[in-house]
Amino acid sequence: MIKITLPDGSVKEFANGTTPMDVAKSISEGLARNVISAAFNGTTIETSTELTTDGSLILYTWNEKEGKKAFWHSTSHVMAQVLEEKYNGIKLTLGPAIDNGFYYDVDFGDNKITDADFKAIEDRVLEISREKHEFKMRPVSKAEALATYKDNEYKTELISNLEDGTITFCDHANFFDLCRGGHIPNTGIIKAMKIMSVAGAYWRGDEKNKQLTRVYGVSFPKQKDLTDYLELLEEAKRRDHRKLGKELELFAFSQKVGQGLPLWLPKGAALRDRLEQFLKKAQKKAGYEQVVTPHIGQKELYVTSGHYAKYGADSFQPITTPAEGEEFLLKPMNCPHHCEIYNTKPWSYKDLPKRYAEFGTVYRYEQSGELHGLTRVRGFTQDDAHIFCTPDQLDSEFKKVIDLVLYVFGSLGFENFTAQISLRDQENRDKYIGSDENWEKAENAIINAAADKGLKTVVEYGEAAFYGPKLDFMVKDALGRSWQLGTIQVDYNLPERFELTYKGADDKLHRPVMIHRAPFGSMERFIAILLEHTAGNFPLWLMPEQAIILSLSEKYENYAKKVLELLENHEIRALIDNRNETIGKKIREAEVQKMPFMLIVGEEEEKNGTISVRRHGQEGKGNISVTIEEFAKIVNEEIAKTLKTFEV
Amino acid sequence: MIKITLPDGSVKEFANGTTPMDVAKSISEGLARNVISAAFNGTTIETSTELTTDGSLILYTWNEKEGKKAFWHSTSHVMAQVLEEKYNGIKLTLGPAIDNGFYYDVDFGDNKITDADFKAIEDRVLEISREKHEFKMRPVSKAEALATYKDNEYKTELISNLEDGTITFCDHANFFDLCRGGHIPNTGIIKAMKIMSVAGAYWRGDEKNKQLTRVYGVSFPKQKDLTDYLELLEEAKRRDHRKLGKELELFAFSQKVGQGLPLWLPKGAALRDRLEQFLKKAQKKAGYEQVVTPHIGQKELYVTSGHYAKYGADSFQPITTPAEGEEFLLKPMNCPHHCEIYNTKPWSYKDLPKRYAEFGTVYRYEQSGELHGLTRVRGFTQDDAHIFCTPDQLDSEFKKVIDLVLYVFGSLGFENFTAQISLRDQENRDKYIGSDENWEKAENAIINAAADKGLKTVVEYGEAAFYGPKLDFMVKDALGRSWQLGTIQVDYNLPERFELTYKGADDKLHRPVMIHRAPFGSMERFIAILLEHTAGNFPLWLMPEQAIILSLSEKYENYAKKVLELLENHEIRALIDNRNETIGKKIREAEVQKMPFMLIVGEEEEKNGTISVRRHGQEGKGNISVTIEEFAKIVNEEIAKTLKTFEV
Repeated sequence: MIKITLPDGSVKEFANGTTPMDVAKSISEGLARNVISAAFNGTTIETSTELTTDGSLILYTWNEKEGKKAFWHSTSHVMAQVLEEKYNGIKLTLGPAIDNGFYYDVDFGDNKITDADFKAIEDRVLEISREKHEFKMRPVSKAEALATYKDNEYKTELISNLEDGTITFCDHANFFDLCRGGHIPNTGIIKAMKIMSVAGAYWRGDEKNKQLTRVYGVSFPKQKDLTDYLELLEEAKRRDHRKLGKELELFAFSQKVGQGLPLWLPKGAALRDRLEQFLKKAQKKAGYEQVVTPHIGQKELYVTSGHYAKYGADSFQPITTPAEGEEFLLKPMNCPHHCEIYNTKPWSYKDLPKRYAEFGTVYRYEQSGELHGLTRVRGFTQDDAHIFCTPDQLDSEFKKVIDLVLYVFGSLGFENFTAQISLRDQENRDKYIGSDENWEKAENAIINAAADKGLKTVVEYGEAAFYGPKLDFMVKDALGRSWQLGTIQVDYNLPERFELTYKGADDKLHRPVMIHRAPFGSMERFIAILLEHTAGNFPLWLMPEQAIILSLSEKYENYAKKVLELLENHEIRALIDNRNETIGKKIREAEVQKMPFMLIVGEEEEKNGTISVRRHGQEGKGNISVTIEEFAKIVNEEIAKTLKTFEV
Repeated sequence: MIKITLPDGSVKEFANGTTPMDVAKSISEGLARNVISAAFNGTTIETSTELTTDGSLILYTWNEKEGKKAFWHSTSHVMAQVLEEKYNGIKLTLGPAIDNGFYYDVDFGDNKITDADFKAIEDRVLEISREKHEFKMRPVSKAEALATYKDNEYKTELISNLEDGTITFCDHANFFDLCRGGHIPNTGIIKAMKIMSVAGAYWRGDEKNKQLTRVYGVSFPKQKDLTDYLELLEEAKRRDHRKLGKELELFAFSQKVGQGLPLWLPKGAALRDRLEQFLKKAQKKAGYEQVVTPHIGQKELYVTSGHYAKYGADSFQPITTPAEGEEFLLKPMNCPHHCEIYNTKPWSYKDLPKRYAEFGTVYRYEQSGELHGLTRVRGFTQDDAHIFCTPDQLDSEFKKVIDLVLYVFGSLGFENFTAQISLRDQENRDKYIGSDENWEKAENAIINAAADKGLKTVVEYGEAAFYGPKLDFMVKDALGRSWQLGTIQVDYNLPERFELTYKGADDKLHRPVMIHRAPFGSMERFIAILLEHTAGNFPLWLMPEQAIILSLSEKYENYAKKVLELLENHEIRALIDNRNETIGKKIREAEVQKMPFMLIVGEEEEKNGTISVRRHGQEGKGNISVTIEEFAKIVNEEIAKTLKTFEV
């Protein structure tokens, strides 16, 4: 008999040679139907692998990331089988699962795979799948493995680097492949499969090596899953922030200014400003004080903070002065500057916490190949703040920060998120700076605060920064994609390095604790995500313009201006389109610009002192004719649905 | 007979050998009494110099800068005379007039001059002055001059560099000095004189040379002028923005961050923000659009703009990237970025003017010795904007900018200013880029706009930038000192260099004209000047806090909080001082912090729902007891006196 420990901590006895599938069956028939992969003592195995020692077992279904990985990796075997059938003399190399599917890197020799071939390959993959071939692992000696692949220099290279006795092949149908394992029980559950694209890829990612063809695919246990996935991709393409940013004239890039350095056009700058004002207002209520610091600092500043030693060589290089030989760095973060502000005067415990906030633009070097729209840039503005408090205040400060973050997410329509709590690796405590007592205080502060606020949490041991534990918010967008937004980090390191102090009630000097926090993270990345989340239809309170007044002809310019003035009195942001164009063209353009309300004014409206209101995206429905006061009420009611007042 | 042309253009005939004093007498006795110096054909001369050719003559009194220069330079002769009397074997070198007085650089040999000696020197200078010695120029040959100064290596060096026949000495009393001329008629008009300080100064400013002692002095035609001047200096010291900035906790510098890089503390940042919001609001009304651009740009950007060729070597040096060998520069101005924003899409004449505004932080290298508080820094934020318009729009755009600048000055209490119009040097037209037609259009636009707006103007030919004419506002502060604030510049150069275009009514591409403008100039410098102008008592609308609620004891904390909430409802910025300190101490600290209103709350106030109001700086006067509503009215009435709404 062997003892199997399950994820819930329960321990059960099974006969030696029991398989994960047997264990699943012993739990429930439902689980056994769904289980597709497993991990034993941390190693991925098949559901048919016989267990011969005590150990911890995790069973995976399609719903787990690990289950999907086994599913996709198994499909890559079937696809490889089909490619070998279809193309003569090709050489297989590696075929792993990735975040959204799998790929196989293939040396096609004289063959060429084109888009036109995809359908036939997919059909054949599904045909084989329907035959329900089992995936079975087979140990082979190194000599046998090398002999088998004697004509495939890629597999030969892989095998050469493996130790004899650890090498396995995976068999299914009449196909085999060098493989470490991690497959679904049989091909039968692959119900939908699609080749997404082919691309060039160097063998082992090294451009000195031969270029192979990477065939990307994805597969699902239901046909509908594939349809949904493809629709999601289409929708993601429509919502791509780079595309929308251009269409809505929010931001642009210029080769002359430099890659990864966004230029915020008027509408984008107004949107940014509105977000900043929104957060500033809440932060003011929460007791933050805004500061402004320069975008450079002496190298010395970053030597003190420790950033130079860690990142100096891979960063934008120092700026020197012509005569005086000084060295400055573009600031990669605002914390050293804020520490220096804290240090401008002595503090008493009665003065704390001090909460310094800054929309601080920082610059970090990224390789040009890594740059991507606004989500990966070289210059970005953090909605940064640093709280300097006593260790006793950490608990309540942490809760206050969570309140603020939740307020921000709520006002912006992000309702689906998880809080990831990153703690120390308990077995390597000397990797971290700060006393055990303080770490426990900080970790408990985070855990308690998250529980107190009813957050859905995941705890990750060993994921803390070396200077303190942290809490990150993982937010799901409208397409179900996860983004890390908002971070709260405890820091014992910088207060030491900058020798920050306050005088305690005991009249002695103590070190304050520092909290770094940024609800948005960065303005650039946040706006990119918000753009994709909302497809450009931002919450009404945030839209650069909330309404556009469309005159039926230039004759109504004066009335349009009067309407604009009245709207401004109601603090509604609007503009006039009084061009000599047809109303149809004006409406179409306003729709593209995602104008929330189109207010049409002509003879009738001028006579009655009204406007004809048309809501964005509702072309089918009739306009309503209202007075300005009535319209202001409509706008304010819609805003009040998302934008609440922040209460401390 | 000779023909003398006077500044009003009139030409009079005089006998050969007539002196400027004779000319003055021929005009009026009053002028003759006051004239103290003159210039003939552009050369400074004495009022006793005989005129022997036709030419242009300007007569100077104390009221002109040139008159003061002669006065101070003459006093330096008398002081030198006294120093020679008093200290044995000293060597005189150079003794020019400067902006506020004069100095004489002296090699004191074994002697030492100390503060204790000043009074006796001053008394002796005035004693000699009362003897009414005339200053008389005497030509000497180079040989004689060298012989005279054979023991003075400094004068010898000066004489060696002069051409024989051009060398003059100036005599007065029994003293003479090598001198080019430019003196007052006689010592009698020097009625007050003071030695301000002594300092070390290298001969000819070269630190490889011997260090001399520089004796700074100042003198006046009336004793009261000196008293007033010394009071002004005291007041300027009290108002020194570096001192006030520290006391009011507005900004700080950190050696670690770097010299010349201000850190804006919470109160200073709030003040800045208020100024920015104020200008943003007016600019929005005036049709400006805010943009946001990065603080760096590729070197290429500044090569295109021409700035790199001109300033590159003397600037912060380029930032390189680790792997890709790119070169970036800290941006020294925002215009190239705004040109790139203009270039993100094609424009029609119907779209113009485009007015891009940005509170853009720029970085310019200044030698550390040149840095001074906030007035001379290495990083500063311009209230920058660039207007891109058609040549035909230049006139009206210029007027609109003047309106905005006047609104800004009015709202901030700067009422005394002159507009300096800088035009082309008419005789060197090829120094400038752009067509004659455009220059005339632009110059006329500026002249007309200034006249139309009733500005007090000074026209300076040859002071235009090579790329276009400009208008600068010279503002007098409360101490009568002149500052250049606000600039409006026309630019034909950057539109060429960045190949900016718009499609005209003729369907052809044209170059827009660009206007650079900044009403404040820079936030840093403007706030420094405003601090010194107001001594920290900013206009009420601008104060970071308008009132402080002082509780008589901690018992009244709840009432204090209620008052704060009510004040916030009235949009009055206030804070609470509820520390366990005496009310006297709280008031004293609030006074130092220049809190406009101190609102005292205790038992009586809580009972009656009132506050006891004390105005800053009015300790002698009784407090008034009012309701919050009454207080809000007082505040709003005071604000309305300075802060008007900007009307376009």
